[in-house]
Amino acid sequence: MTMLETLMKKRNNEELSQAELETMIKDITADQIPDYQISAFLMATYFTGMTLPELTHLTLAMMHSGDVIDFSDVEGVKVDKHSTGGVGDKVSLPLAPMLAALGIKVPMISGRGLGHTGGTLDKLEAIPGYQVEISEQDFKQQIKTVGTAIIGATGNIAPADKKIYALRDVTATVDSIPLIAASIMSKKLATGNDALVLDVKTGAGAFMQEQAQAEALAQIMVKIGREAGMQMQAVISDMNQPLGNKIGNTLEIEETLDMLKGDAPADLLEVTLALAVPMVMMAHQADDEATAREMLLGTLADGSALAKFGEMITAQGGNVSVLNDYSLMPHAQYQVEVPAPATGYVARLDANAIGIASMRLGGGRTKKDDLLDYGVGITLHKKLGDPVSVGESLMTIATEKKQIPDIIDYVLEHVEIGPEATKPELIHAVIK
Amino acid sequence: MTMLETLMKKRNNEELSQAELETMIKDITADQIPDYQISAFLMATYFTGMTLPELTHLTLAMMHSGDVIDFSDVEGVKVDKHSTGGVGDKVSLPLAPMLAALGIKVPMISGRGLGHTGGTLDKLEAIPGYQVEISEQDFKQQIKTVGTAIIGATGNIAPADKKIYALRDVTATVDSIPLIAASIMSKKLATGNDALVLDVKTGAGAFMQEQAQAEALAQIMVKIGREAGMQMQAVISDMNQPLGNKIGNTLEIEETLDMLKGDAPADLLEVTLALAVPMVMMAHQADDEATAREMLLGTLADGSALAKFGEMITAQGGNVSVLNDYSLMPHAQYQVEVPAPATGYVARLDANAIGIASMRLGGGRTKKDDLLDYGVGITLHKKLGDPVSVGESLMTIATEKKQIPDIIDYVLEHVEIGPEATKPELIHAVIK
Repeated sequence: MTMLETLMKKRNNEELSQAELETMIKDITADQIPDYQISAFLMATYFTGMTLPELTHLTLAMMHSGDVIDFSDVEGVKVDKHSTGGVGDKVSLPLAPMLAALGIKVPMISGRGLGHTGGTLDKLEAIPGYQVEISEQDFKQQIKTVGTAIIGATGNIAPADKKIYALRDVTATVDSIPLIAASIMSKKLATGNDALVLDVKTGAGAFMQEQAQAEALAQIMVKIGREAGMQMQAVISDMNQPLGNKIGNTLEIEETLDMLKGDAPADLLEVTLALAVPMVMMAHQADDEATAREMLLGTLADGSALAKFGEMITAQGGNVSVLNDYSLMPHAQYQVEVPAPATGYVARLDANAIGIASMRLGGGRTKKDDLLDYGVGITLHKKLGDPVSVGESLMTIATEKKQIPDIIDYVLEHVEIGPEATKPELIHAVIK
Repeated sequence: MTMLETLMKKRNNEELSQAELETMIKDITADQIPDYQISAFLMATYFTGMTLPELTHLTLAMMHSGDVIDFSDVEGVKVDKHSTGGVGDKVSLPLAPMLAALGIKVPMISGRGLGHTGGTLDKLEAIPGYQVEISEQDFKQQIKTVGTAIIGATGNIAPADKKIYALRDVTATVDSIPLIAASIMSKKLATGNDALVLDVKTGAGAFMQEQAQAEALAQIMVKIGREAGMQMQAVISDMNQPLGNKIGNTLEIEETLDMLKGDAPADLLEVTLALAVPMVMMAHQADDEATAREMLLGTLADGSALAKFGEMITAQGGNVSVLNDYSLMPHAQYQVEVPAPATGYVARLDANAIGIASMRLGGGRTKKDDLLDYGVGITLHKKLGDPVSVGESLMTIATEKKQIPDIIDYVLEHVEIGPEATKPELIHAVIK
């Protein structure tokens, strides 16, 4: 079977066999297939889709194209969480220590931010000394001793996905549900965990703007994971507005610490629990949701989650004093208020635009090698449905430039004040 | 507009503008677009198709990507003919001198064979001395003096098509009707003729096996040509069995000469007239089909077409003595008969298989730079619907090898003798 024959079959909407998909991924990984054939395959897949068996074989082949972490010598159920990405989405940061405080093993391999969404690793690097690059051996050791670690990719995870992703980006084949599902799941399966809860975002600031699309993606990822023997669950959560009140690297660590001390924005807490409750149950630490929820809230109330976060910071070389002294992290020079243009209720607070504004301030990357200003960002004082008076501050912008009229104008173009108080649903669906 | 945006629009089935298509073709010609984006575009076009305005803009942009022959200093209507290719299809060879004998200008740029179909240029090169590579100036001069010339591409005709075609071949995007139409028509428009008659083949040995596909392709090419200001007509003709009785380079020149001397196989004569009659009318040499047909048959009866073929051979450096001495052309060493396996009527005589057999004998190319054995080929003694007795010769194979059991077996696998005499329709449709 040559790549041309595989391509012809895919184009003709015939089902590819396990052997055909494995050969293709092996050859892509070994640079044996020219980019123009890969991109033609991706576009054909965009149009014809993939069956569940095809998608499972593709995902597993991509997973096995590189290193697969072996956690078999770490006792207990290893649980993981993945979000498709949103603005202000810092859920991994409080979630991991809350679970670890219950004795659950949470090994997390996270990414950096690109574009309007932030990256968990960038946020952690606002903590002086925090190391995200850790050897696989140290990673495993920390899971054994602390219970959790949030690190960057070790070794060579799913190299076939890297090549395919780079081509998707330049061939208009990014937004294909099977290709997204295979990309995410191949990397998640390679991290060697036993259980995974997915947070698929939907709304104006999400990659999957339509809820039906988000559900379709979540469904297919849950199926692939189960085919591969992982415990799976998914939540469809709202990304019309940012999650929580703070956007920016230092700012999001601050909000995480506040939450671990018991002072959480309601939406951030609710999404964190929606994801963490099934993880507790998958790890067999509770038999019902109410109990799991109580246990998780307990880790906030008794300070054990905060202590666990401190342990993780220490284990990864960070300065644990940040827990009680936020000034140890980088902060921006100026604070600029954005006054409400009218009186009424916040009717639109576009997550995408807030993310882009934070990126433009220097908090995010437009190119892979951009350097970050960790201290910049946005603190929201009003969320969707909140009442506001004309002139009242909607948000505070932390900036290194005194004058930022362009950014203020840009943000205000994406904010609307309306006559009625309506709040979006936060959790749109749960896929069990 | 970047290529990525163009690609995204095409993928989303939005209509591309003239400017977008012109920019894309200009950039492809200048090697400014990576192959992986071109191939993704081709696959997206395979699935979404193209509107007539898109296709016309694309075709004209491809036509203008290289040289366009200017025939404005040659008086009269310049008429041309194009066939999508078939086995034994030598129609251009008698057609051009028949029309030229009526004073009609017939400048023809032809191709070489690749795969199972022969190439007009290869056939002409069976004539000792015949030159197919001629300067544009000499080409025009010969059209003025002789009235016809059959040559290879001069200069740089539609280089964008060359690049696109090479990619289509390796990305499973060859059989896309809009891409086929743009490829053929860009080259035909670049030859600067006023009128074009298309012969779109259909049947087992044709690229377009289904008649509906063949008609769709013919319709769209006629429309593109008219949009570009050309007189257009198309014929859908049968390619279930080879056209005429001889397949092979020397053999097809022999059959052409026989036809020009008044001894033509019925099917070859009928297809030639079906194409030549509208060309006579487009050149304003007759007002109705019956008159045009009479005039064309007259050029065979009075020897004027044969004389014109001789003039063309002489003008292009060939040995005109072949007209009466076929032994001046290369001939194969051995003649092998293929006996009928049963008594009955020929029910299948697969054009594709006969073409492949001729190619395997050395008469065609499997790769671009293969050398040809001009003398090899196949002479059919029986065609579809003809009665045959067991052991009677179905065909004679001219070969350089004494023993060719594989080829005989291969041919017989693609021949069937049945109980009923049925002949296929030769002309399935005419698109005026």
